[in-house]
Amino acid sequence: MSARDQIIATTCTLMELQGYHATGLNQIVKESGSPKGSLYYYFPGGKEELTEEALHSVGKAVYERIKLNLAATSDAAAAVREFIAMIADQVESSGFRAGGPITTVAMETASTSERLRAVCREIYSGWVALFEAKFREARIQAERARALANLTIAAIEGGIILSRTAQSANALRQVGEQLAVLIGLGS
Amino acid sequence: MSARDQIIATTCTLMELQGYHATGLNQIVKESGSPKGSLYYYFPGGKEELTEEALHSVGKAVYERIKLNLAATSDAAAAVREFIAMIADQVESSGFRAGGPITTVAMETASTSERLRAVCREIYSGWVALFEAKFREARIQAERARALANLTIAAIEGGIILSRTAQSANALRQVGEQLAVLIGLGS
Repeated sequence: MSARDQIIATTCTLMELQGYHATGLNQIVKESGSPKGSLYYYFPGGKEELTEEALHSVGKAVYERIKLNLAATSDAAAAVREFIAMIADQVESSGFRAGGPITTVAMETASTSERLRAVCREIYSGWVALFEAKFREARIQAERARALANLTIAAIEGGIILSRTAQSANALRQVGEQLAVLIGLGS
Repeated sequence: MSARDQIIATTCTLMELQGYHATGLNQIVKESGSPKGSLYYYFPGGKEELTEEALHSVGKAVYERIKLNLAATSDAAAAVREFIAMIADQVESSGFRAGGPITTVAMETASTSERLRAVCREIYSGWVALFEAKFREARIQAERARALANLTIAAIEGGIILSRTAQSANALRQVGEQLAVLIGLGS
């Protein structure tokens, strides 16, 4: 991994764990094992620019994972249930330290950084579109497919918050089961 | 309002807007109009103690609002739809600066402050219990009532994140409509 990619990966991990404001550039330099000058060399715009890159990176990785997982199961309701069960397993196996890689940054910056807010909006919008397309394939009508996709992303985001706070992935699993019932109703 | 209550109210507002780490004690003192020494006088435990009090305060206020709103509409599905529509209106009328009063703090501190994590868990758990009781009254069986209540809180939390990020309350309204369909299925 290049020094630049290492800095981005460390930023993603720290922001998923503790958020934007708690993550200082010194901590990123230290934990990424980068030479001190490299951060401003690669990211002359400083923390906001680095965070934007980190959000793009993790946003794209999640997008690809959603895409792959939805393609792997033909039934839309089962695909959502299985995807959420997988996230629940991962939140659990991280010791509830990971999950919702952009959630904290999105809420911290929604009212304070127009630049980061726009990036988060774009990422969520891409994730929602994948579920929407899956629901359209299942012949769910357009308006309902859109609403169900928004509900799916909202419920995953919120389910991760409940699970990390409770240190139990039960809420997230229940969210997946209930969403599958609703999606299974069809059009 | 007492000086102590004023400090707590200001803390709630700032943390809802920007989160835990972005909110410094100096800003709280300044915006609450309190004398500088009063913060440590009322909250000798500093920022963590003050935040705990602020979380309790806003958690209880939301609890009472949920209770009141669920009692006002007998049909469970309609009650949830109306409650979420009301939140959507409020997020919108705040210019997307408010909504999810404990969300940001919950995520920022879930892995870094055992004390604040425990408070957030307790608050979420109280809110979930209110919806669970409403669904039980609607004769939905116990396990499903619990799962639906977790989904409801998760979807509201996540719907607020999507809405504040997108600066549009549409996602939140769609969440309410879709949840009502699911709840309306009954037992």
